[in-house]
Amino acid sequence: MPKDLEKKYSLHARKSKRSVIREMLKLTERSDIISFSPGMPDPEVFPKEEITKITEIVLHREGGTALQYSVSEGDKRLKYQIIQHMKKDGVKAKEENILITSASQQGLDLVSKIFIDRGDRVVVELPSYLGGLGAFISYGAEFIGVELDEDGMQVDLLDEKLDKAKEPPKFIYVIPDFQNPAGVTLSVERRKELMKICEQRDLTILEDSPYRDLRYEGKTIPSLLSMDSSGRVIALYTFSKILFPGFRLGWIVAAEEIIDKLVAAKQSTDLCTSAFTQAVVNEYMTQDYLDHQIERIKKVYKEKKDVMLSALTEFIPKGVTWTKAEGGLFLWVTMPSYVDASLMLKEAIKEKVAYTPGGPFFADGSGQNTLRLNFSYPSISEIKEGVKRLTNVIKKNM
Amino acid sequence: MPKDLEKKYSLHARKSKRSVIREMLKLTERSDIISFSPGMPDPEVFPKEEITKITEIVLHREGGTALQYSVSEGDKRLKYQIIQHMKKDGVKAKEENILITSASQQGLDLVSKIFIDRGDRVVVELPSYLGGLGAFISYGAEFIGVELDEDGMQVDLLDEKLDKAKEPPKFIYVIPDFQNPAGVTLSVERRKELMKICEQRDLTILEDSPYRDLRYEGKTIPSLLSMDSSGRVIALYTFSKILFPGFRLGWIVAAEEIIDKLVAAKQSTDLCTSAFTQAVVNEYMTQDYLDHQIERIKKVYKEKKDVMLSALTEFIPKGVTWTKAEGGLFLWVTMPSYVDASLMLKEAIKEKVAYTPGGPFFADGSGQNTLRLNFSYPSISEIKEGVKRLTNVIKKNM
Repeated sequence: MPKDLEKKYSLHARKSKRSVIREMLKLTERSDIISFSPGMPDPEVFPKEEITKITEIVLHREGGTALQYSVSEGDKRLKYQIIQHMKKDGVKAKEENILITSASQQGLDLVSKIFIDRGDRVVVELPSYLGGLGAFISYGAEFIGVELDEDGMQVDLLDEKLDKAKEPPKFIYVIPDFQNPAGVTLSVERRKELMKICEQRDLTILEDSPYRDLRYEGKTIPSLLSMDSSGRVIALYTFSKILFPGFRLGWIVAAEEIIDKLVAAKQSTDLCTSAFTQAVVNEYMTQDYLDHQIERIKKVYKEKKDVMLSALTEFIPKGVTWTKAEGGLFLWVTMPSYVDASLMLKEAIKEKVAYTPGGPFFADGSGQNTLRLNFSYPSISEIKEGVKRLTNVIKKNM
Repeated sequence: MPKDLEKKYSLHARKSKRSVIREMLKLTERSDIISFSPGMPDPEVFPKEEITKITEIVLHREGGTALQYSVSEGDKRLKYQIIQHMKKDGVKAKEENILITSASQQGLDLVSKIFIDRGDRVVVELPSYLGGLGAFISYGAEFIGVELDEDGMQVDLLDEKLDKAKEPPKFIYVIPDFQNPAGVTLSVERRKELMKICEQRDLTILEDSPYRDLRYEGKTIPSLLSMDSSGRVIALYTFSKILFPGFRLGWIVAAEEIIDKLVAAKQSTDLCTSAFTQAVVNEYMTQDYLDHQIERIKKVYKEKKDVMLSALTEFIPKGVTWTKAEGGLFLWVTMPSYVDASLMLKEAIKEKVAYTPGGPFFADGSGQNTLRLNFSYPSISEIKEGVKRLTNVIKKNM
């Protein structure tokens, strides 16, 4: 090994560690543990038969191009399908406003790459998505954290925090629908207020929408993207939750000028996204399977969410609260302030149940007494049994 | 649009442009142009039937995991296959030494991410791979360029240049086999000398080996990776040239400690590589198809290379020289110093032939009179006709 390897690393890499969540994924390989930890879809709902059929069609019809390099911007046909899909959600986008990505984590990376230099500020929710925080940190971002409540980011606090900040943030990162990790949704009033603040202060918003299509109840609230008339919202979407994650496909919507910069960034990052997976998903959407698939997923996940909520209500002791998500994949549990969810995890694993401790989701180091529960991956019976096991562990710690 | 968008971009993004080569790819969409420009494989050799069959097997047998998230390090089974494949090339690697990437461009990005801070130095060949230069620049690297000749990087010049450098480079980037763009191969004496210099100066080498398995003639020269006993070589490989690019699959080999840092970087970049494409290529290798596929590709490309060399010998006027690659995808043409290949490209496109101008491959701004010719993508008859058209254009400029 080079002797002074540590000094050779970049400033970021010297401090970098593997992600808590990703390492946690490995726990799920032990079949005796009920894991509420990773945000994984239920593989039972993957449309394996349709994909097998479509793969054959695509390879037969266009194998030469599907297995070849493709343009960095992404498959035009898939973009067309995406435009039609978003139209139903009130978004008017053109081909030039879309970049196909290797799922939305790449969206987070590319947006970071074109905006963040070491020491730049980014506004994040407290708590926020770990993969977002990780991407921003990897480019040297510093955070302005804004607390959440049941109606999402407390936008009234944002104005104050921006006043106090030495420099304006490069962008405001927000997951408005069924937030990861907290499960809460930004109210329509706050969305309007947020847009107004960003207009007044000339700020950019990064809207992360992985779960937007997975609403199980309540009324759909317009996306920030659909409310934007001045090109200041950059929105990230993914097929990981509405189809499956194994193809690594997502997309970014933004003003054409920003997409241009993102395309240049993508070229140096991975040249292009898989032509093959894009062709398959294009054909899948052309054959009109996606809407049915989303309905199917919603039905399965709604039931799981309701089962988890019932089990929590039935078992979990007083003094512990949780969010009542109207969609997405997660519930968020807050224990009394003296309970440390990270320390408690070891005991939980002994009891054969796992969750994601909440602390790492907080950019300000708070939230040690919180934890995230995923309800999409485990089965109904596992959810019931897992909440019982979790209850035992929590009770011992209270 | 935010009013001061330009000021909001990162320092790199303010200057970033789409890659010349990638934009050039779009030219090939016009069917009347014979393009020697992009480094694309011949789609005629893609094993469509085998992949169709294997895709069905994989989806049937393991659809639930193949369409799911996977671990960031990559599929263990695929790593095992890769280890066996590299063993035949004298490389002893363990699972812990390998990270599966979204092809080798991601390898370039991740290595840059963990080593380069703004202003850091990287040694590159003159000329070098555009995608490598682009990745390093995107993290703010500055270059120490070392000239090539028919035997690859002029390692005797390296020592001098390192003496003059204000700070040691973070790594030395070299494409030893059938270099992109120059087509030349680093001689065994120079490989030994390079390893010695790096031992003495405690330097890291980034060995990019996309074409290593595509040797059409001459004796195989040991890879730097296989010569390394001290963990200072990081090697990049890809399935793009030995199988096909459409799956976006490659791998990095490095010391376990470095792989650890790269895994952390990958997590914030795209979480994981497609489980599906990894499962398919694993099955493809398990069924022992890859070696046959490589033999098949070599046969086709050798013939194309020989046809291009013959056509160049037959048509191109005196005063123009070219490299005689023993493998890979490219020949490299040097015209008299007064001819500008970038300016000449417009005329070439009028004559319905395209190539990649050499200038952008030179980190020091030289090489305006050079150009790169790809022989793997065009058909035999296109190669003959294309070289004739190119000859006309060159003659007009001499």
